[in-house]
Amino acid sequence: MKTAISNGSATGRLIGVGVGPGDPELLTLKAFRLIKDAAVISYITNDRGLSQAKQIAREALQCAPKNQRHIEIVMPMSTDRTLANRAYDQGAQAIQAILESGNDVVFLCEGDPLFFGSFAYILARIKEKFTCQVVAGITSINAASAALMDPLTLQQETFTVVNGRQSDQLIEQALRHHDTVVIMKAGQARTRILALLKATNRYQDASYLEYIGRENERIVTDLDQLGIEAGPYFSLFIVCRHQRPFFT
Amino acid sequence: MKTAISNGSATGRLIGVGVGPGDPELLTLKAFRLIKDAAVISYITNDRGLSQAKQIAREALQCAPKNQRHIEIVMPMSTDRTLANRAYDQGAQAIQAILESGNDVVFLCEGDPLFFGSFAYILARIKEKFTCQVVAGITSINAASAALMDPLTLQQETFTVVNGRQSDQLIEQALRHHDTVVIMKAGQARTRILALLKATNRYQDASYLEYIGRENERIVTDLDQLGIEAGPYFSLFIVCRHQRPFFT
Repeated sequence: MKTAISNGSATGRLIGVGVGPGDPELLTLKAFRLIKDAAVISYITNDRGLSQAKQIAREALQCAPKNQRHIEIVMPMSTDRTLANRAYDQGAQAIQAILESGNDVVFLCEGDPLFFGSFAYILARIKEKFTCQVVAGITSINAASAALMDPLTLQQETFTVVNGRQSDQLIEQALRHHDTVVIMKAGQARTRILALLKATNRYQDASYLEYIGRENERIVTDLDQLGIEAGPYFSLFIVCRHQRPFFT
Repeated sequence: MKTAISNGSATGRLIGVGVGPGDPELLTLKAFRLIKDAAVISYITNDRGLSQAKQIAREALQCAPKNQRHIEIVMPMSTDRTLANRAYDQGAQAIQAILESGNDVVFLCEGDPLFFGSFAYILARIKEKFTCQVVAGITSINAASAALMDPLTLQQETFTVVNGRQSDQLIEQALRHHDTVVIMKAGQARTRILALLKATNRYQDASYLEYIGRENERIVTDLDQLGIEAGPYFSLFIVCRHQRPFFT
């Protein structure tokens, strides 16, 4: 951690804060306190100005000072990493200017900041020069497991997380070799994943969830009820053994 | 979910609540509210009457009613599952008596209730007969990643969690085939794990943490500084690639 000094006065800290998967009451006490007390917050928005993280943190933001400053980082909807990297560069520059002025910046992230989170890319651009801190958040995986009331792992079970965008071969290996498998960002790959679940004989073990803890939450435990159309980005499959030898 | 009726009046609900890995401020708002408002709480203690979960939830418990009832489930320190199952049976019976009387029971768990958590064993004994609910908690994995300020996963990286008690072969496979590997409950297996990290050329990628967020927290990023003596139960290794192709 750096404690850089600028113009004789201490610089601010960048604090990445997880706001959890959707339910505003799944913010931690620490996240709530940091967001409501922050002079400056920052978050990613889409190109229509909407931010999931800001929406989830709305109750903390209602308690924040009226002059709280918001640094919005507009992320273009594109698979082109050049555009994403440009947005991160510009966002990091805006944050850095605040830190140099001596103010902290609290960066809001859906879920946990360092678990498939965009905060990692901001942190990488800031951490060599300024003091940083991270406050863990509830992941969509833990919220999904709570909603299903199915243990994610027990005793000697192995557990793995893959991304729905990975190759068929990699997803199939995970399904064959691990007891519990979570497939994140499953929306676009839904049809492909359903076929892989059948091919590996894990179809009966799987549930599908999207927008967990939000108003449009959807939980499907019988995959025959799930259409083959593409689902949203915030969706996942949880695959747990139905027969669990250690579970007595 | 069941909505069983007993003697003409509704029965209570069992609510499993994660209190996070150690920092009392990492309770969620929901956990804090449920614990402070509960007429009856329950938790595991060791045979000296100590409960990690109760200790972590101490600030919520200070706000609880003075006549809040505590159901303690004493867990013997033993690898004999018969003794553990007997403790779960007795605990579930005591909880069931409260639920039948119409009161809710809030069960406190370290970390997340369904991620390597003891709550799974209580839930299995209750869920067919009574309404149950689970509130996710911050896991030690996410807290460890926050403490290290190292992303757990990025984009296409794969992530797996294994238990330090698993076979050398299984741990070695995880280290060879996954980008990020978390080895939980690493204490007793520390020497064995250090050898496996060297054998798989992942020694430089690994950090070791114990009692994250508690007063006796220990974080070791240079494993040469880690002795070969056994560590505590609440300890883990996090192994992340130092060279991350997607991380720009």
